[in-house]
Amino acid sequence: MPINIPLLLPEQLLPIAGVSLGTAEAGIKKPDHKDLLVIDLDDGAKVAGVFTQNRFCAAPVIVAKQHLAENSIRALVVNTGNANAGTGNSGLEHAHTTCTALAEILGCNAQQILPFSTGVIMEPLPVKAIVNGLPAAVANLKQNNWFDAAHAILTTDIVPKAVSKQIQLNGQTITISGIAKGSGMIRPNMATMLGFIATDAAISQTLLQEVVHYAANHSFNRITVDGDTSTNDAFMLIATGRANHAEICEKKSAEFTQLQEAITTVAGTLAQMIVRDGEGATKFITIQVDAGKNPDECHKVAYAIAHSPLVKTAFFASDPNLGRILAAIGYAGIDDLNVNDIQLYLDDVLVAENGGRAPGYIEEDGQRIMNQPEITVRVVLNRGSAAATVWTCDFSYDYVRINAEYRS
Amino acid sequence: MPINIPLLLPEQLLPIAGVSLGTAEAGIKKPDHKDLLVIDLDDGAKVAGVFTQNRFCAAPVIVAKQHLAENSIRALVVNTGNANAGTGNSGLEHAHTTCTALAEILGCNAQQILPFSTGVIMEPLPVKAIVNGLPAAVANLKQNNWFDAAHAILTTDIVPKAVSKQIQLNGQTITISGIAKGSGMIRPNMATMLGFIATDAAISQTLLQEVVHYAANHSFNRITVDGDTSTNDAFMLIATGRANHAEICEKKSAEFTQLQEAITTVAGTLAQMIVRDGEGATKFITIQVDAGKNPDECHKVAYAIAHSPLVKTAFFASDPNLGRILAAIGYAGIDDLNVNDIQLYLDDVLVAENGGRAPGYIEEDGQRIMNQPEITVRVVLNRGSAAATVWTCDFSYDYVRINAEYRS
Repeated sequence: MPINIPLLLPEQLLPIAGVSLGTAEAGIKKPDHKDLLVIDLDDGAKVAGVFTQNRFCAAPVIVAKQHLAENSIRALVVNTGNANAGTGNSGLEHAHTTCTALAEILGCNAQQILPFSTGVIMEPLPVKAIVNGLPAAVANLKQNNWFDAAHAILTTDIVPKAVSKQIQLNGQTITISGIAKGSGMIRPNMATMLGFIATDAAISQTLLQEVVHYAANHSFNRITVDGDTSTNDAFMLIATGRANHAEICEKKSAEFTQLQEAITTVAGTLAQMIVRDGEGATKFITIQVDAGKNPDECHKVAYAIAHSPLVKTAFFASDPNLGRILAAIGYAGIDDLNVNDIQLYLDDVLVAENGGRAPGYIEEDGQRIMNQPEITVRVVLNRGSAAATVWTCDFSYDYVRINAEYRS
Repeated sequence: MPINIPLLLPEQLLPIAGVSLGTAEAGIKKPDHKDLLVIDLDDGAKVAGVFTQNRFCAAPVIVAKQHLAENSIRALVVNTGNANAGTGNSGLEHAHTTCTALAEILGCNAQQILPFSTGVIMEPLPVKAIVNGLPAAVANLKQNNWFDAAHAILTTDIVPKAVSKQIQLNGQTITISGIAKGSGMIRPNMATMLGFIATDAAISQTLLQEVVHYAANHSFNRITVDGDTSTNDAFMLIATGRANHAEICEKKSAEFTQLQEAITTVAGTLAQMIVRDGEGATKFITIQVDAGKNPDECHKVAYAIAHSPLVKTAFFASDPNLGRILAAIGYAGIDDLNVNDIQLYLDDVLVAENGGRAPGYIEEDGQRIMNQPEITVRVVLNRGSAAATVWTCDFSYDYVRINAEYRS
């Protein structure tokens, strides 16, 4: 069950001027299930994005990258139930067909459409069902539709992931709304399975691209459920410029920093929601590595802990078998690591130091923390001033069940 | 349940002249359970070994490395139930105490003893129980005791792992016997949890060290159950020189090649047994990557597939959801990989080529192979002439159960 995700209410999600969303039941995989989303953008909206680095990246990722690089974007289209990945040339044709069909309805060029797909890999995209579903999705377009949009992009997710935030920029209210999906095959390497954030702020294309990278690196690129990097990861950031303020063109301005932090907060909330709804997850784990020589080695240690099946099953069992964390630190790949320098904390409890169990540590303290639904593992390397944080979840029977049953 | 490991019979294990083994119930963790093994070597026996590269390597690993580097070895002592890892300075003292106690009984120096421990991490070694158990283990020493020894070193293993082999070297019969243990925390990085192989062949110390590296690299270093590299991995190779032939001192001799291949075969059999008895394993998977640019990239691809929880749960479910294998190949870390060049086979069935599903592939063929208890995944990269093979198992409910319950 999802860990501490509050119930989402439609009225909590704020419309963004210049962005309309429409959903439909296209019958891609299951009947009676919203599986198609169109996001329509007003003229002048800017879009920036980051995509998976998986070499087997999906056909829609290839097409979306091309279209984004060369065109002003008019709409995004997302289907669930099929990833259109590992589908070769016919997959590319299907992605183009989808774009062409939507462009005809909206009266724009196919190159102004960004396609996204999520679902099973290496099965042909049911492109006819998608094309047939597009008119209903377009007919459903409205600004106040973020709640339905959050539902329409889910696959194995249990709960929808969406959040809105407002900030004041020079006395002007700026709104940011975002949705994301993802629950398994989560170890994003540029972005999560799918994330879409829009704002009415006005910002130059160059700076928007900087913001999307920064936000991804501090949110979606810091989570892992199972270490499997998806073929379809994409995170899109839309700025419609419809708020009434001068366009942000200066990286050193207070406005840029404020907007970037606000968007990163929204992205971070969505990223954490993905982990909280991780397949089979029962615990939300923050792994914080401090005092490393550089960020890279801090990430290595954090991910070694976050990916260890033995650490993850110990969290599932609420078993303070914390030597497994030491073993993961030890094989993280830092060749000159002196294990006697390290401190390991579970929340505020010092567990290990000087290469072994801390003298003041008692199992009852470890057990008390392990029983919690949210736990912070803190590793202090004591060899520098770099740090890194990664969010992950535990590994349960249900993870195996979900992934043994998915598709069949 | 273990996959295709034939029942081990005591008479299948052949004694090695110059090697005696004794076991005892020391009550280290559980009562009525053999948990202590002493391997006594005649004068003149040579020992070579490889050890874990985990930075949190266990106290006995540190001590065994020191003793092996500087001394002629007289005996090895192995306890289960406690790894003496993550135990700091007191762990080192306990390892030395164990060596001293055994040395007194055998009448040698403590530096001539190699200590090994396996079991739970970050708990103090019950050194008194071990010291008290040593006289019984020594009283039990006999050459024909490999079967009991294989049992005494088990932890979460279901079955004992042992094998013997004989070869003719210049008309002289050479015998090799080996035992190993390991079932979880298995992704050896020099060697497996614990493996001991002895032969009566006569070979120089330099060449024996070469053989132990070669054998480890082609056996224990090619297996993974869960990607967790243990703190206690060690693989020891003993040559007593009691067979009646001239010592092998020449690397280019036919005798060296013959002996190295035979020892590697024994090590490979033991390594495969560890995977076949992997925690919760229901399927034995061979991952073969061919036609890569270099061995390193072939290993990257093989391990990405072998460690993917999604691939492993699909094998558990016998679900030919083979797009998950493509995704793992795609994130294996080969930056210039052209996915259109790759062929993916399941046994002899061509599953994918040209970036997508092979035209002749039908799901029934994939299903037929997935239903088997032993499966070979073959990836042809078509970019060079290097190759690599890795052995692994699937990921089941029972893996989670075993590791959620272990210790508690």
